[in-house]
Amino acid sequence: MIPISPAIILVRPQMGENIGGAARAMLNFGLTDLRLVAPRDGWPNPASETMAAGALDVINTQVFATLEEAIADLHFLVATTARPRGMVKTVYEPREAAQENYRRMQEEQKTGFVFGPERSGLENDDIARCHAIVTIPVNENFSSLNLSAAVLLMAYESALAGHTPAEPTLETNGGLPASQKNMESFLSRLEQALDENGFFRSADHAPIMKRNIRNIFIRSDLTEQEVNSLHGVIKSLAEYSS
Amino acid sequence: MIPISPAIILVRPQMGENIGGAARAMLNFGLTDLRLVAPRDGWPNPASETMAAGALDVINTQVFATLEEAIADLHFLVATTARPRGMVKTVYEPREAAQENYRRMQEEQKTGFVFGPERSGLENDDIARCHAIVTIPVNENFSSLNLSAAVLLMAYESALAGHTPAEPTLETNGGLPASQKNMESFLSRLEQALDENGFFRSADHAPIMKRNIRNIFIRSDLTEQEVNSLHGVIKSLAEYSS
Repeated sequence: MIPISPAIILVRPQMGENIGGAARAMLNFGLTDLRLVAPRDGWPNPASETMAAGALDVINTQVFATLEEAIADLHFLVATTARPRGMVKTVYEPREAAQENYRRMQEEQKTGFVFGPERSGLENDDIARCHAIVTIPVNENFSSLNLSAAVLLMAYESALAGHTPAEPTLETNGGLPASQKNMESFLSRLEQALDENGFFRSADHAPIMKRNIRNIFIRSDLTEQEVNSLHGVIKSLAEYSS
Repeated sequence: MIPISPAIILVRPQMGENIGGAARAMLNFGLTDLRLVAPRDGWPNPASETMAAGALDVINTQVFATLEEAIADLHFLVATTARPRGMVKTVYEPREAAQENYRRMQEEQKTGFVFGPERSGLENDDIARCHAIVTIPVNENFSSLNLSAAVLLMAYESALAGHTPAEPTLETNGGLPASQKNMESFLSRLEQALDENGFFRSADHAPIMKRNIRNIFIRSDLTEQEVNSLHGVIKSLAEYSS
């Protein structure tokens, strides 16, 4: 069985609000395995409830005394750190870490991302228990990421790693693109109305001007309903001007 | 001049905490153009300070009465929505929206991402002012993203769109990989110590066992210093056992 999602392991988290925010971020992207190592204010923590927005009711939250116990059943662990720590360890960016994580999950490995306390981050002894490091590429002049923000980015990348990106789609509310017949009927009517109003002053330039106007509307990938609306627009304008 | 970053436009934001969180998320990824349209509790808002963690001192924050005024100088706008709205509009995922945004910034277009109020999201009239829609691919059963979380993801993707991902690197604290000579000296010593302790019971299997052991250490890409440490480990173990 392929595990559904990596575990999120928060080591000595301080603020209940951040645990709640992390839980909400996890569930937003389908992650449900939260492990707390020695949370400062104990567990459960009422301060987490508001920020969790109900996520803690769904997520499986476990509390452990030590990181060693929290990760005992896992096979591959990535430590999040803000800066290099002088340890011999592969350093990933989030997207690449999520891809490696996904590859290992497909091999039925159980995996986890490990996050340190708000103020200080992971201790080197925590990092030494992990197989790799992930560093989020932040603004060097303002690099302090909120704990739940760091969890959000890793949860987002984890979810995307197993997700084929959708091509940009044109939302049409179910409407088909306009038929060429309807489009042509609209454009002819527009040209005729403009002609009657003396828009094409020079017969020489009229073909170019018509082509330019035609391109504006063709480019817009109009739906049948939109072309019908434009018919009405022309009708209304032409009546007003006459 | 290429604009440094897209504007982040928050339409009728309700909670100061979320404005502060959005500002922090923006600056984490180098975005500095924040535009507030009719914030519920006015501006400045003391409730934003803690969550901003100082970001509001650096970010350029402007307040407008209407979305129309807020976007007057911009060329390309993407509306964030949680669900389709029945409008004829291109729908992107965040990464693809950020790439399109980056492409346009390189053409010297000024761009922006537009976010609605916490509870209700953008109104259809707001969305109609935007050129495209971005929808963040969240868990369908828990799709309510915190406002500052949505800003964080778009800021992160915007920053990455102009960023060549770094290949995973092995952090070595400046140390070179071990020379093959030192590696060979360690492996020979290890084999010799194991031999003396009767580890290779069968002469037939000894070559395979030696190769397996060798592979464990070769695969680890050891630094010179690590090999020296392992020399010490073997010495210590061999002394203990004899």
